[in-house]
Order: sequence, then C-alpha cells, then structure tokens
Amino acid sequence: MSENPTAAVLVIGDEILSGRTQDTNTNYIAKFLAALGIDLKEARTVSDVESEIAAAVNALRARYTYVFTTGGIGPTHDDITADAIAAAFGVDIDYHPEALELLGARYKPGEFNEMRKRMARVPLGGTLVKNSVSTAPGFQIENVFVMAGVPMIMRAMLEELAPRLSRGVQVQSVTISTRLPEGRIAAALAQIQKDHQSVAIGSYPFYREDGFGTQLVVRGSNSAAVEAAAQAIEAAVLAEGGTSSRVDS
Amino acid sequence: MSENPTAAVLVIGDEILSGRTQDTNTNYIAKFLAALGIDLKEARTVSDVESEIAAAVNALRARYTYVFTTGGIGPTHDDITADAIAAAFGVDIDYHPEALELLGARYKPGEFNEMRKRMARVPLGGTLVKNSVSTAPGFQIENVFVMAGVPMIMRAMLEELAPRLSRGVQVQSVTISTRLPEGRIAAALAQIQKDHQSVAIGSYPFYREDGFGTQLVVRGSNSAAVEAAAQAIEAAVLAEGGTSSRVDS
Repeated sequence: MSENPTAAVLVIGDEILSGRTQDTNTNYIAKFLAALGIDLKEARTVSDVESEIAAAVNALRARYTYVFTTGGIGPTHDDITADAIAAAFGVDIDYHPEALELLGARYKPGEFNEMRKRMARVPLGGTLVKNSVSTAPGFQIENVFVMAGVPMIMRAMLEELAPRLSRGVQVQSVTISTRLPEGRIAAALAQIQKDHQSVAIGSYPFYREDGFGTQLVVRGSNSAAVEAAAQAIEAAVLAEGGTSSRVDS
Repeated sequence: MSENPTAAVLVIGDEILSGRTQDTNTNYIAKFLAALGIDLKEARTVSDVESEIAAAVNALRARYTYVFTTGGIGPTHDDITADAIAAAFGVDIDYHPEALELLGARYKPGEFNEMRKRMARVPLGGTLVKNSVSTAPGFQIENVFVMAGVPMIMRAMLEELAPRLSRGVQVQSVTISTRLPEGRIAAALAQIQKDHQSVAIGSYPFYREDGFGTQLVVRGSNSAAVEAAAQAIEAAVLAEGGTSSRVDS
C-alpha cells in the first residue's frame, strides 16, 4: 500500500501477560508513528525472559525499518532488557559514561547504588535516548529503540527520538458510520475494494447502548484515492437505503 | 515456574496497528486464562494479510498449548481469518452445515446473502464455538481457537470454549505497595528473588498525582512460597525505613 518506513513494537513485561496491566503503549506508539508516516506492521508482547526478548528483537529488526521496545530498563533484577538487546546484537554491555554522569548528578551522595547504576548500562554501540520526565535514559542501537514501560516516560522518549526517524507519507483516513449492518453492504464493499486497490477498506461493526451499526474506514496515502473510495462507500450506503456520517482524519 | 498449560494470543487487525482501536481483548483473555491456571506466554498483533496471519498461527501453535485469535471473522472482504487458518493448517475450507443452519435461521428470507454466508465458512476439521451474543460462531481447529474481535462477542466465546481447556494450577499473586523508590530496595529484592526461585518477583514503579512509589508483585503457584517471598519483601521495605500495604489475589 505504500513505500513508507515500517515498524514493530515489542512490549516486554510479565505484568502485561498476567493481565495485571492493560498495555496502552502500543496504541500510543501506533498513533505517534502514523502521524510520521511510519507504518506499524506488527506488535508482540513477550515475558521477562532474556532469550525470548532477544529472539523477538532479532526477528523484528531484520524485518522492519524500526523496532520500538517498552519495559524492563529500571534498576531491579527483573529489568533485563538491556542485557537481552546486547545478546540479540551479540555485543558487550557496559556503563555508558554520559548515562552514569546524568544519573550520578540526580542522586544524593551515597544514593547512587549498584542497582541504580544498572540503569546506565547500554549495549556497546548504543546511543542514549534521554527524556524530559526521568533521568534514566533509554537507548538506540541500530534500528532498535529501547524505551521505558511507564507510559509517561515512554511518551517523553518518543518525542526525543522522533527527529532520528525517517518519515513517510502520512496515511489519510476517512471513517464512514452507518446504522446498516455490515452484511447489507458487504458485497458492495468488496467491489469497491476491488475498484480502489490503492486504499485499504476496513469494516467494523459496533454495538452500543443506543443501537448497532458499522464503521467503514478507508485508509491510504493518496488523498484523491481515499476520497474516491469514500464517496463510493457513501453512495453504496445510500443505495441500500441507509444514511451515513463521516469523519476525516 | 510451572507445568501449567501455556497459551498465546493473536490479535488480527489493521485497526489495532493503525492506532484507531485500543486492544482490550488481550488483557481480558490474560485474566481469563490466569483464572484457569493457563499461562499466557506471548501476544502478537498482525495486519489483515493472509500470509502474516498464517505464519503467526503456525509459529504460535507449534510452541504453546493453545492459541486464541481475535478478529476477522465477519462477513466483509477484510474478514480473512478463516481462510488464513485453513492455509496455516493446509486444509480446505467450506461451509459448516451447522453454522449455515444457525445463520440461515437468524436472517429473514432473502437476507442471508452470499457475504453473510462467508461467516459459516470453517476450515475442514474445525468445530464451532458458539456464543450467547451473536449467531455467527467462531471455531476451534486442533489447539487454535478463532474468536470474534468485538469484545462483547469474544468474551461470550471464551465462556463457551472454556470447558474444552485443560486447566493448571492457578497462579497466586501478592502485590505489595510502598512509597519507597524501587532503587532503594532493588538490592534486597534481587537477593529475595535468588532465595525464592519458585516465584517470580516483579517491580513496577508508579507515578500518580499524590506521589510516586513502587508495586512489588510476587507470583507463583505454591501459596506457601508466595507468602514467604512476600514476607521477605515486607521486611525489606521496613528495613529501608518504608511502609507497605498489600493485596492478595
């Protein structure tokens, strides 16, 4: 559908897989990348096991322009992301001088203990991703960006690293809402998708207190093509005796 | 950590990867499986592309006891999950007689069109997963359960298929909250993890309007072992001059 840069998200965390925490980082990153014209193609969540993290990083970094990881870069024993990334790249890991300096300045004398120093460890070849919320940095190594799991910090890291990313053409999207059930317009929709192959048309039924219906979403990087498909869908809804409203974004 | 059955979730949907929709199904499934003693080990989200879905299904079904997919089983052109599963298993796909009957009875004469009939297509060897919300069924083929993406319907399908699942030992969990920063107790925590290897100890910093702190989570299938580790953590927090509260679940 486009020549845009591609990306994958890798969420690292037992707390997501146990159901304890609802992941919201993937959705935030998805929107952030969409605004830059970078197509998020895959997301994975793995547990806090070094071999699992390393295997996922290697599978994803070979396949997509960028990989964004979240989680596991704090000071405690379960924060093993930096080691896993070093293992994935087959490089050593050591204290990063600038990270040591940043963290050393943040703590009172005697408070910068061994465990906190863990947050300054970066695989060799990595560069820091600082942020405006926490002193502890993330890092970038080749096409992999390693970020915190705490949403507030993760978001600040995204802002920091954004200038390093190649941008693509922002995907245009039109959402057409109708009270028709999707089965009524499915045949017309299939034909419209065939006639407008440069866009992706998605159909999403909804069920709400005030009734049900369908949201039809047209996405593409050519706005004229998106508009043509959107108008065809609006006409198809009308032809089936329905009405629709639309939101462009 | 346990001999429990394992599972993976596969979310199928461009609408998740575009950021349009926040996935909540994975979190719901995670909690649902935890209550049955089934360990969720991995989650993936892939786009509406048959080869991507099939490749992910094959990777996950070879590795885990169960795979649960959500999304892509409606009547429209972008609902390609059933075909992708058939491709993954290398089997044909055809109308399932009981699904045809169920759906045929639901629609008025003339309304059960070709596109709606798509919802009755099941890979050969598959059995239906009915549900109390929607007439359109999901299906099971070997260790793969194919469910709707609409959360209300997905949840009803989980209830329906639960009796088919082997159960394990439910993981016990204790959450200890303290206002200490995690860097203060990280060393003690690492030692406690070493001393209590049958449990998993996670440390999760939080930042709230009323201040920051750390949640320390002990998880394991042996309640005495979980209790011993929890008490060790409470003692470590006290020793560092902190206080804590705890929630067992």
